[in-house]
Amino acid sequence: MTRTLGVVLYPDFELLDVFGPVEMFGNMQGAVDVVTVASTPGLVKSAQAVRVNADHGVDDCPHCDLILVPGGMGTRAAADDPRLVDWLRRRSTEAELVMTVCTGSGLLAETGLLDGRRATTNKAFFAWPSTTWPRVEWVREARWVEDGKFWTSSGVSAGMDMALAVIAKIAGQQMADLLATGTEYEWHRDAGWDPFARVHGLV
Amino acid sequence: MTRTLGVVLYPDFELLDVFGPVEMFGNMQGAVDVVTVASTPGLVKSAQAVRVNADHGVDDCPHCDLILVPGGMGTRAAADDPRLVDWLRRRSTEAELVMTVCTGSGLLAETGLLDGRRATTNKAFFAWPSTTWPRVEWVREARWVEDGKFWTSSGVSAGMDMALAVIAKIAGQQMADLLATGTEYEWHRDAGWDPFARVHGLV
Repeated sequence: MTRTLGVVLYPDFELLDVFGPVEMFGNMQGAVDVVTVASTPGLVKSAQAVRVNADHGVDDCPHCDLILVPGGMGTRAAADDPRLVDWLRRRSTEAELVMTVCTGSGLLAETGLLDGRRATTNKAFFAWPSTTWPRVEWVREARWVEDGKFWTSSGVSAGMDMALAVIAKIAGQQMADLLATGTEYEWHRDAGWDPFARVHGLV
Repeated sequence: MTRTLGVVLYPDFELLDVFGPVEMFGNMQGAVDVVTVASTPGLVKSAQAVRVNADHGVDDCPHCDLILVPGGMGTRAAADDPRLVDWLRRRSTEAELVMTVCTGSGLLAETGLLDGRRATTNKAFFAWPSTTWPRVEWVREARWVEDGKFWTSSGVSAGMDMALAVIAKIAGQQMADLLATGTEYEWHRDAGWDPFARVHGLV
């Protein structure tokens, strides 16, 4: 079975939040097709200026088995886009598994689907999501948090570790190890590994 | 002084080879402007399907102080594109510093500029560049290699470590540390750290 990963893009998304995980999912020997989706299709400017194409808008996006929501300076504005938030709520309800990186957990929290669930986010900007969406049980120290089908990761590079953990779950440990070796990436396999919580005074 | 980083794109480039380093350079508080360049401007499809915009073609690209050459399945075909190789040779000669990730060192080697220099590349595909460009002194065990203004890194994720080392050199250790912490990235600071050389039987 080939799964489809829908990668959410919005203006000022953080590049590595997207392309760390997509590097892993996109190399699964055809097991995952990657599609990009934004409020409207076409070029989306990242927070680091490079423009990436959204293959689909919310009106023509195919079914997504997996969804990836990045963070970035544009997350707050994206959470104010009802078209995008409505799409994310509807599609996350239908999806097998939903992932966020960094402040992307704020965008997912805006759908209400994280209410009562455990989740984490960027450790440098922890106050924003934890005060804006207080019904989420925000975890202060974690590389990533899994709660049901919702996987939320810490800042930027944490998305790669979460992606490999998700791949180990859906496609086996051997596939995840192959990807880590193939990308010459030293994978943090422990979801509790989080020196950055201490750096930012959260623990 | 604001530097311009020219990021080379070509069909089937590897996503993380580009966006690991660009994540770092693109967050230097305006010290580096990132531009993308391909043989011709417009959308370029990566090896992982996502399409990224080349802002410039080789005919209209502004001066680049820094150049980044990614690897990927398309490197071999890119090395057969005389427009791209000629541009890279001319612009690398003028540039302050030239970086490659993964098999991107093969594309740079095609310009002849690595002849007689020390360089490294992806450890899973070491045989290809080392037999195709034998005048380069290929280093079998290294996260990255610095030889004059040419910095070549090992496979995929090694680009992030090399980028931070370059940033430490041109903008100071504090900036590099800020970027690593900001992206919650555990930076390998030792250019000699390379467990993947052993994995692939190179040492």
